[in-house]
Amino acid sequence: MTLTRSLLLGTALTIATTAAAAADMKPEDAIKYRKAGYSFMSWNMNKIKAMTVENPDSFDAKQVAAAANAIAAIANSGMGALYIPGTDADVGNQTTRVKPELFTDKEGVKEVAVKFNQAANALAKAAESGDKVVIAQAFKETGASCKACHDKYRKD
Amino acid sequence: MTLTRSLLLGTALTIATTAAAAADMKPEDAIKYRKAGYSFMSWNMNKIKAMTVENPDSFDAKQVAAAANAIAAIANSGMGALYIPGTDADVGNQTTRVKPELFTDKEGVKEVAVKFNQAANALAKAAESGDKVVIAQAFKETGASCKACHDKYRKD
Repeated sequence: MTLTRSLLLGTALTIATTAAAAADMKPEDAIKYRKAGYSFMSWNMNKIKAMTVENPDSFDAKQVAAAANAIAAIANSGMGALYIPGTDADVGNQTTRVKPELFTDKEGVKEVAVKFNQAANALAKAAESGDKVVIAQAFKETGASCKACHDKYRKD
Repeated sequence: MTLTRSLLLGTALTIATTAAAAADMKPEDAIKYRKAGYSFMSWNMNKIKAMTVENPDSFDAKQVAAAANAIAAIANSGMGALYIPGTDADVGNQTTRVKPELFTDKEGVKEVAVKFNQAANALAKAAESGDKVVIAQAFKETGASCKACHDKYRKD
């Protein structure tokens, strides 16, 4: 899948999934699923970090590719659909660190979301190359795109 | 990626990641990450179910493919590495429904894990076809492979 196609797909998914499948989703489930997505990406980011930055001797191209594919596939899965009404604060047994701005600053959110989506897909592409230096750079850019969103839309 | 390669990769990952990256992972984090993976797959299974079984009129080939890719990429990410010592019961603030048998019945676990991995990759392949009937069948088989593991290794 090309990067452009992934991006278009990501945007389309956000809108379409909201309409189609989120109609009967409970707010606490939406929070649970989006936290699960970020958490699972975090595990895979940690693995790539370990194998490229912290302990490059442990570099394993197949493991890095599998981790990067998981991150990209989660990024491409339309998580925007999980920011439904009623998910801007803790609900049920689910806590959230999201800031209210995420639900109002449409342009700003789109910007960080597109950048993250681009970076995650670029990381998966870099991982295919098996080149440690290329992967380390793409990893750094992906991490920066995560942080850009956290800084703006996540409470500490 | 071929199915065979995915399977080999999955098995290799389980072993290699355990050795390489899990050394300094806290048991509560391992439980958190594996629950996140299952939870996120569950969201994506629900989307595919909604678009193929419950409300076929809402079928959207791109959304189904994105959901199936997320499930397959998570399945291929080496989650076996998250079943480290100390994760066979609740720990820290993490609860787990895993049965102790999962940590001892190596042959049985391998069997359900390989079947699930095969089914998840077959579902992603089916989703590429865009054929609703083919996808519905692959979805059913993936669901059955989830349930086979739950029945044997998860408490109710």
